[in-house]
Amino acid sequence: MKTIQVSVVEEILSANDQLAGQNRRLLDDAGVFAVNIMSSPGAGKTSTIVATQNLLKDRLRLGMVDGDIATTIDADRAAAAGMQAIQINTGGNCHLDAVMLSTALPEMKLDELDLIIVENVGNLICPSSFKLGTHRSVLIASIPEGDDKPYKYPPMYRGVDAVIINKVDLLPYVKFDMDYFIAGVEMLNPGVKTFPISCVTGEGLTDWTDWLYEQVMQNKV
Amino acid sequence: MKTIQVSVVEEILSANDQLAGQNRRLLDDAGVFAVNIMSSPGAGKTSTIVATQNLLKDRLRLGMVDGDIATTIDADRAAAAGMQAIQINTGGNCHLDAVMLSTALPEMKLDELDLIIVENVGNLICPSSFKLGTHRSVLIASIPEGDDKPYKYPPMYRGVDAVIINKVDLLPYVKFDMDYFIAGVEMLNPGVKTFPISCVTGEGLTDWTDWLYEQVMQNKV
Repeated sequence: MKTIQVSVVEEILSANDQLAGQNRRLLDDAGVFAVNIMSSPGAGKTSTIVATQNLLKDRLRLGMVDGDIATTIDADRAAAAGMQAIQINTGGNCHLDAVMLSTALPEMKLDELDLIIVENVGNLICPSSFKLGTHRSVLIASIPEGDDKPYKYPPMYRGVDAVIINKVDLLPYVKFDMDYFIAGVEMLNPGVKTFPISCVTGEGLTDWTDWLYEQVMQNKV
Repeated sequence: MKTIQVSVVEEILSANDQLAGQNRRLLDDAGVFAVNIMSSPGAGKTSTIVATQNLLKDRLRLGMVDGDIATTIDADRAAAAGMQAIQINTGGNCHLDAVMLSTALPEMKLDELDLIIVENVGNLICPSSFKLGTHRSVLIASIPEGDDKPYKYPPMYRGVDAVIINKVDLLPYVKFDMDYFIAGVEMLNPGVKTFPISCVTGEGLTDWTDWLYEQVMQNKV
């Protein structure tokens, strides 16, 4: 029983990786850069994406693919901010996979986009196992979640290209030792970029969008 | 391929339910009441459990089983508060299941306990699919996660006996419409008990522990 389950899971992951490769080729052929954004529920993925759109919209054409168990709340917010937005309802599934992204991409006008931000399902565990074909992966942590999260959820912190630390406006009201948090991140993912931000006050946002813009431009060369 | 996966998942869930039944019988034979506590990462499961121990320790003997991907941080906190505490490291698994609990229970001195609080892995999706054999399930939401979480994570909100709303001390600093949140909870789980609390200020905690004490006592009759 256990053996069967493992082989099925391995086949699923291998099939997923192949499809992730196809997604990447489709994106590269269209000249579109893509970023996979992951976090716990409520860490501020949509707020960060909307803020990113507002800061980059004069330089880049942004789209958003949103994964949620239910509702179109997040994609509606992105669309209202002027982004091409597609909602994927996963029907209870706890993560996006390459199949889901492969069904969403043909629904988008790729020739009118420079950057697609994929908002994964709010989950600090499962999404880290499923490649989507995006060029970069970004994790959003948030201050009220606590400074021990890298230590308790290591796989997610290991596999990303940048860590955004959102809700720094709440630092005066919450116990959070930034040095302890950063030490955990560095232990798991040495040299990874970290961006302390607040989507409420705007603090730190241009550092994040400058980095993101640079990633997109490097890929165009 | 898809069919195989579904049948395997169904067999796993069915085997899990059988083991959950065994766990329940073991607990009932020992006269121990058990509660499964679930939440997003960082919503305050361990803080709530420690506060519960402090308020109930003169009336009940409490134990804790903690599920985490890595570390013993949470079980150490519970043990420091005087609880019998067992740490289950799930090795990357995104939820506790009945097998894991069945391996933990024999490690506890059940005849010295009235109540076991099981702290599930921080995840607002997957734990809702796996019965453990506990008598009650409780979800901890938290203010900074946002008021839209019932709408976006319905399965978790549907299956629980009580919803704790933690970190109400942050209400002055965060946009959170309590009426909208409660309306979502009520839509999914009519009449479910809700307990707004703060583990920092202590607000609301005795309402929660009074309810929990009552559940334990009702089961003893």
